[in-house]
Amino acid sequence: MRINRERLWKKQHETGAIGAVKEGGISRFAWTPEYKRACENLMEQMREIGLEVRMDTVGNIFGRYEGSEKLPAILCGSHLDTVPNGGYFDGLTGIMTALEAVTVMKEEGFKPRRPIEIVAFINEEASQFLGGTFGSKAMCGELPPDYADTCRHRVTGEPLRKAMKEFGMGTDPDRLPDSRIDPKDYFCFIEVHIEQGRYLLDGDIPISVVSDIAGIKQFYIELHGVSCHAGGMAMKDRHDTLQAAAAIACEVERLALATGNDTRSTVGYIESEPGEHNIVANKSVIPVDYREADDRIWSQLYEDILEFVKKECEKRGLTWSVHSTCDLAPSHCNRSIMKVMDQAAEELGVRHNEMISFPCHDAVNMERILPVGMIFVRSSNEGLSHCPEEYTTKEDLGDSADVLLGTLKKLSNREQL
Amino acid sequence: MRINRERLWKKQHETGAIGAVKEGGISRFAWTPEYKRACENLMEQMREIGLEVRMDTVGNIFGRYEGSEKLPAILCGSHLDTVPNGGYFDGLTGIMTALEAVTVMKEEGFKPRRPIEIVAFINEEASQFLGGTFGSKAMCGELPPDYADTCRHRVTGEPLRKAMKEFGMGTDPDRLPDSRIDPKDYFCFIEVHIEQGRYLLDGDIPISVVSDIAGIKQFYIELHGVSCHAGGMAMKDRHDTLQAAAAIACEVERLALATGNDTRSTVGYIESEPGEHNIVANKSVIPVDYREADDRIWSQLYEDILEFVKKECEKRGLTWSVHSTCDLAPSHCNRSIMKVMDQAAEELGVRHNEMISFPCHDAVNMERILPVGMIFVRSSNEGLSHCPEEYTTKEDLGDSADVLLGTLKKLSNREQL
Repeated sequence: MRINRERLWKKQHETGAIGAVKEGGISRFAWTPEYKRACENLMEQMREIGLEVRMDTVGNIFGRYEGSEKLPAILCGSHLDTVPNGGYFDGLTGIMTALEAVTVMKEEGFKPRRPIEIVAFINEEASQFLGGTFGSKAMCGELPPDYADTCRHRVTGEPLRKAMKEFGMGTDPDRLPDSRIDPKDYFCFIEVHIEQGRYLLDGDIPISVVSDIAGIKQFYIELHGVSCHAGGMAMKDRHDTLQAAAAIACEVERLALATGNDTRSTVGYIESEPGEHNIVANKSVIPVDYREADDRIWSQLYEDILEFVKKECEKRGLTWSVHSTCDLAPSHCNRSIMKVMDQAAEELGVRHNEMISFPCHDAVNMERILPVGMIFVRSSNEGLSHCPEEYTTKEDLGDSADVLLGTLKKLSNREQL
Repeated sequence: MRINRERLWKKQHETGAIGAVKEGGISRFAWTPEYKRACENLMEQMREIGLEVRMDTVGNIFGRYEGSEKLPAILCGSHLDTVPNGGYFDGLTGIMTALEAVTVMKEEGFKPRRPIEIVAFINEEASQFLGGTFGSKAMCGELPPDYADTCRHRVTGEPLRKAMKEFGMGTDPDRLPDSRIDPKDYFCFIEVHIEQGRYLLDGDIPISVVSDIAGIKQFYIELHGVSCHAGGMAMKDRHDTLQAAAAIACEVERLALATGNDTRSTVGYIESEPGEHNIVANKSVIPVDYREADDRIWSQLYEDILEFVKKECEKRGLTWSVHSTCDLAPSHCNRSIMKVMDQAAEELGVRHNEMISFPCHDAVNMERILPVGMIFVRSSNEGLSHCPEEYTTKEDLGDSADVLLGTLKKLSNREQL
């Protein structure tokens, strides 16, 4: 039983083209008319192969292939929306490979014991309405009930409520909590996604079994000191926030390198006031982004850098505060599912490795309530993603769908993980 | 023979009030109508005591008290312009103390052997037309002849030529080089100036004999790397300009502290692009300001930091360039003049110390062509300057004028330094 690679390639491009913009790339933002066309297109494809199709109250789409027994279903999919001027593969790959896998099962008369439910999450990218991985958050019960009113369009400022009302299709801003799923109804969650990096490309490997999704801590360290003229005060009498910020940025990086665990730290900029070349800064802000897959290291990094900030500020006579904007603990893929994926790839003779995902995915939310597994497929064009140049070859897409098909077949017949 | 402290205090405030603005402080910018009023006021005061008064082709004012012999003159003064919303003391103190000293000499019938020439420099602050210490540069022949056309108003963009034409009073944009003085006509230059810092205040000392004026190097280090997503690339594969910039800023400070010579280094901000919290920076600019009185250390600092930049960029795979905007070598006050000032203060019983000036003054330019001496007078209000709160007490102002008077008397009778 193998994937029809030509059909998958054709459907990936037909559905993927919805939302194409003349400046280049695809802009298919959640709750827009383009997004509605993509939903109708996808739901029609699901109906064509006989799936039971529904949309929940926030806009997630489900296509269910019933199993031979009344067992918890395997949930499988990814997101249908894109970034501005995005590509054909980010998100959609996880939906179309799942659709193709189920299509082949039906064509070949394979009836799984467990139901397989394809999911297309809405607003993972948060291109217009902030707060990413929206659809999966809703399913996991992580959205505040009043979110349709508090979440606003990043340009127009209009509430999400308005966009959902105009979108229709059964979405209901007053019933967001109804999108929550009952974990007891599901066996696990599987997501195929493009790598969005160049490590598979550089290693000449088409597929990776994801082991963990790195936790993300994003926080802003704000320092307050005293400004003075560059010539007016001896070094020892200064309360210079820029020099403290520079020392902190160096320590952020040093701590990340010291873990020996492929930790990633980013300080994208340092903001300083008054920001003049000949005036000592009296205020600096350092945004820190830490990504780490190990729970203990992930927590320790944050404690260690704040300890350093404290000492640095004491030394220089500064005051400081910290404001956290993202605090997503690491997610860990289920080891049994990883083993099944590994076997499926082995049987197909598809080269593969294991990898940590540093970008965030819907799987992060799903991991809070279900065992999850993730397959990465190689990004070919220099690893580029979130741009029109994003590319994955027909062969690699086919390989990932075949590994998914093999995985679903094995999992659907399992009593337990 | 002593200064009339009441008269000095009164005149300092009468002339100092010209250019007062309703938002607070004094905005007396070169070549403005307010500046013209201040010039007329000062020239009238000079004429009242019988000085020979002239304005040169750029707007510097001279008031000459002839000596009993045809000897090179002592030049003595400071600048008449202010920063935006400045105070009553910066610059003007050097002019009014000189005027008071000469007034007392004339009142008391003291005829110096050498002429004493009071000077009021124009546009030291460069509040509207960039390039500070303009008047003294013109006198030292350091202005390009086409400067009236190339130098433009920082807000309106209009050339200096227009401002000079409107100003009148004999200034002539086509004859800037005629302001150049012949060093052979002068014996030395003396400047009294407020400290603009709090070291005399903290030491409870009214007066300081300046030993050197720190050299200033200001330069911009520009780094170019490659941007990528915070999650997309391992640390070892990055070409991160912000992390390099932070390391460079730390080294700038470390080098300054390591001289053990009260070197001052300032990095007022770091500019980075794209400047997003979750994107590795691909461009950073670090402005560096070094101030140091020792010539050898001053040069070495620049070489050392560029050596560090080179290594850091090699390590991270970055390209870099450096753009220098100020390169003023240290100035050294004449040791004989310093001794005379010291004696004058001793005889008056005025407590004093020796100090390096870290801010730049007109004396820096004058030192290139004449022996110079500088007296600092205590800034009382927390050392504040360049603001309406700038303050020096009547007693300290009087002490500085008395020390100046004593110094001028001694120098005017000297055959040589």
